[in-house]
Amino acid sequence: MDLSNILPFWEKLTAEQRQRLTGGAVSRTVKAGTLLHQGGADCLGLLAVSSGQLRAYILSDQGREVTLYRLFDRDICLFSASCLLRNIQFDVTIAAEKDTQLWVIPPDLYQSLMEESATVANYTNDIMASRFSEVMWLMEQIMWKSFDARLAAFLLEERLVEGSDRLPITHERIANHLGTAREVVTRMLRYFQQEGVVRLTRGAVELTDLEGLRRLENG
Amino acid sequence: MDLSNILPFWEKLTAEQRQRLTGGAVSRTVKAGTLLHQGGADCLGLLAVSSGQLRAYILSDQGREVTLYRLFDRDICLFSASCLLRNIQFDVTIAAEKDTQLWVIPPDLYQSLMEESATVANYTNDIMASRFSEVMWLMEQIMWKSFDARLAAFLLEERLVEGSDRLPITHERIANHLGTAREVVTRMLRYFQQEGVVRLTRGAVELTDLEGLRRLENG
Repeated sequence: MDLSNILPFWEKLTAEQRQRLTGGAVSRTVKAGTLLHQGGADCLGLLAVSSGQLRAYILSDQGREVTLYRLFDRDICLFSASCLLRNIQFDVTIAAEKDTQLWVIPPDLYQSLMEESATVANYTNDIMASRFSEVMWLMEQIMWKSFDARLAAFLLEERLVEGSDRLPITHERIANHLGTAREVVTRMLRYFQQEGVVRLTRGAVELTDLEGLRRLENG
Repeated sequence: MDLSNILPFWEKLTAEQRQRLTGGAVSRTVKAGTLLHQGGADCLGLLAVSSGQLRAYILSDQGREVTLYRLFDRDICLFSASCLLRNIQFDVTIAAEKDTQLWVIPPDLYQSLMEESATVANYTNDIMASRFSEVMWLMEQIMWKSFDARLAAFLLEERLVEGSDRLPITHERIANHLGTAREVVTRMLRYFQQEGVVRLTRGAVELTDLEGLRRLENG
């Protein structure tokens, strides 16, 4: 996918700005599992996803993870260019969850566009507002929802991402998405199995009662 | 305090833009306790604090509160103009914690400045990044810190805000800041008192061992 198809402000750029973008952006293909950005020290640039799937998460000192959000086709990753955003004082890790094709827009190039064009600056604002909303959703889940509701919500979301009722995911990976310990996930999944909403098999979780999961999600 | 002293982009505006701002912004004085903004339906405008103190918090369906951040002199409140930020999909409540003097900049006026001026748009970005960072800090506290560490951190922050080791605050109010139940706060404060780091009196918490509180904060 071309940058002109991903960036909604393309039409509003001058010919010179488009040329600068096309000349400076680099297309990359990364394998699932590739670490693209690790905290504030890195400043790779803006990532524009052509196809595939990225995951943004935070890490505790003890190595525990929580997924903040995922990025899919046509999504833009801003935090891989956190050096552009003076007031961002937290560390996000970005990794490819699937084989991913993306454009890397160097930070100084994007910075110059943001300074020249109110349209680009306001678009950057829109992206940040979207990510902020996703993080607020997550915080409300963590604050007000019980763990069974969060796990049910995660399994239902994962079903949409995978396009299948059979999720090839380990309990460890689920724990890393939800910021908890593997044992806690295993215990709750066994309870879900007793309730008949999932079936646990080696290396996979099969969703067997979507309505039941939705009831659990809504607590 | 004049708007020209609060808004760092003032010098970069045209004479016409300055005039529009001065003509459109309204100065208001609100009493402690005044509710300024309640969720997405309200769109009062940007608030620029001249003096006083505002609190931004979220509310659960059950009426539980968690403080996201506070705003002091020269701070700008963006979420009271959430209609400007298309992708903001969460509800924040803003209330005055102390008697507060502020400027209200109408949303359509600010919107026109953001669209005309990359400087204003990028400044808006900076504010959002700051608030985002505060919320991420809070989320990391909630995810990885135990409640005693969060309570100690809150008491130490409150000491700086109040400029005193004696905090005139109820257990209920502390619970509303931290998103928990009053009983949980009372229990932990009694434990803190046993440890000799606070003294509990009617309607106040006195901090008696700052080093001890810092040790608790760093858990």
